[in-house]
Amino acid sequence: MALVFYSHSDEGGLFEKRFRAAIAEQLPDLEVRTWPEIGDASEVIYAALWLPPEGLFKALPNLTHIFALSAGVDRLLQARDLPSEVPIYRLEEGGMAAPMSQYVHYGVLHAQRQMGLYKEAQQRQQWKRDAAEPAAGDWEVGILGAGVLASAVAETLTVAGYPVRTWSRSRKQQAGVTSFAGWDELPAFCENLNTLVCLLPLTSDTDSIMNAELFNRLPKGTSLINVARGEHCVDEDLLTALDSGQISSALLDVFRQEPLPSDHPFWLHERIMMTPHIAAPTAGGIAAKQIAKGVADAAAGLQPAGFVDRKTGY
Amino acid sequence: MALVFYSHSDEGGLFEKRFRAAIAEQLPDLEVRTWPEIGDASEVIYAALWLPPEGLFKALPNLTHIFALSAGVDRLLQARDLPSEVPIYRLEEGGMAAPMSQYVHYGVLHAQRQMGLYKEAQQRQQWKRDAAEPAAGDWEVGILGAGVLASAVAETLTVAGYPVRTWSRSRKQQAGVTSFAGWDELPAFCENLNTLVCLLPLTSDTDSIMNAELFNRLPKGTSLINVARGEHCVDEDLLTALDSGQISSALLDVFRQEPLPSDHPFWLHERIMMTPHIAAPTAGGIAAKQIAKGVADAAAGLQPAGFVDRKTGY
Repeated sequence: MALVFYSHSDEGGLFEKRFRAAIAEQLPDLEVRTWPEIGDASEVIYAALWLPPEGLFKALPNLTHIFALSAGVDRLLQARDLPSEVPIYRLEEGGMAAPMSQYVHYGVLHAQRQMGLYKEAQQRQQWKRDAAEPAAGDWEVGILGAGVLASAVAETLTVAGYPVRTWSRSRKQQAGVTSFAGWDELPAFCENLNTLVCLLPLTSDTDSIMNAELFNRLPKGTSLINVARGEHCVDEDLLTALDSGQISSALLDVFRQEPLPSDHPFWLHERIMMTPHIAAPTAGGIAAKQIAKGVADAAAGLQPAGFVDRKTGY
Repeated sequence: MALVFYSHSDEGGLFEKRFRAAIAEQLPDLEVRTWPEIGDASEVIYAALWLPPEGLFKALPNLTHIFALSAGVDRLLQARDLPSEVPIYRLEEGGMAAPMSQYVHYGVLHAQRQMGLYKEAQQRQQWKRDAAEPAAGDWEVGILGAGVLASAVAETLTVAGYPVRTWSRSRKQQAGVTSFAGWDELPAFCENLNTLVCLLPLTSDTDSIMNAELFNRLPKGTSLINVARGEHCVDEDLLTALDSGQISSALLDVFRQEPLPSDHPFWLHERIMMTPHIAAPTAGGIAAKQIAKGVADAAAGLQPAGFVDRKTGY
């Protein structure tokens, strides 16, 4: 009985080290083998993976559980040799809730406190106060998504005094947060928003959801934060909306191609603030422990957390 | 019996309107007169002021209470005709706690999440992740000051997971916050800091407290947030510390001269983020009500909140 481990990027092997330690603590008898050194492939029944190379699944005929090292499984589900019957589990929280909440809170504060306008004024050496000075209670934040991370972000923002709404496939219950559900309610969700945050899973339904049509439903001057996937956003539509002022500014952590190509117009756009997919790093000890817990649950015959419904894609 | 009102800047007279409404509600019989239309000066026993012009105090011989429309009274105490025996009360909170906490939280997030480095990388079109990714729990924040606003900021940051310490003249008690007191403990206060925040009152003791000596006590790379008074900071020493990397970045809301002169080197320094004294606007309904409450207390023979000790200067 063995588990195969593969992470597309793991600087210094730090995450693998943490994961092996967590497995050693929770399942001391389970052997962890690092792809491609899989030994006797027939013994490998678990896989813990981020962006696995083609051929990995074909080489492992006896897999019973696949654990994703990430919250999003859009790329994993696209693997051509992915076995159709093996259940997949994704990282639901993985220590990402705290840094994700920090990052989005930063972006909301940046917009609410007009820090972009002050930056532009500073560049022009202009002492210029913004008359508006909106309070947190008057700054409406809408989150596309209502999963584990979106709920954590919604709670942080609610505690900070912002009115928060979420939009998801099915209706959700969260204290102090207004839930909008389904495509029919998307226009109502957009009304009076000041900041729109994307925290959706990437599926065929949500691909390109942030397009000209959605931007035009928002009040003029809404700010945008994308911490989900680059594919959620139609880049050209965002540039058009920024140039017309329909979208006032964007904080982007994710891109259709990463690293973002050096000739992409986002780099030097003065109303775009960019970070290199660092909003919520997963390479922490908490993620390692949560995945190891899932493997231990599977070994004990229990259902691990984070089961992925392949029909909905998350 | 009358009160004289004066505010050096009050766009659209909005604050005066709110203050008059608050007085009308709490003390309907008190007449509010706006300087310089003081009517019979002998009837004026209260003054509510921000940056009063020279001559105001001399013209009002019967003042019994002076109410500052601000938290800091450094300028008021310098007024040459300030009567020496009339008690002064300052605005202790004035609705400033929430915006001040937001502003400082923004600055701490900016530093902790390395947003300055990402901004520089974006300008160079470089996709560059910062390996450190420090957690909030590992980001030590030190606040110079421990008054009403500093305590509110400390609470916000503590809730957000940052270890917080304050420094003040006398020892303070606040849940989850470490208190350092007096000049002897300033070196210990500086140890291992990641972000230093100035929220001190400006007095002869605290003038120029942020100088080369203090900066050199901090760990190399500490970031700075000044939301108190420009006079707390020695500008040349800050520039030297920024250029050597001793201070990694500065978020400045206050300056020795405001508006900041257009030839000042702060404007275009790439490690300085500047805002035009907007961290905690006082022109809100809450401030008006709190000052009116102080006047009502005085009229009822009670001691209003915010009594200023002229010896300490706050």
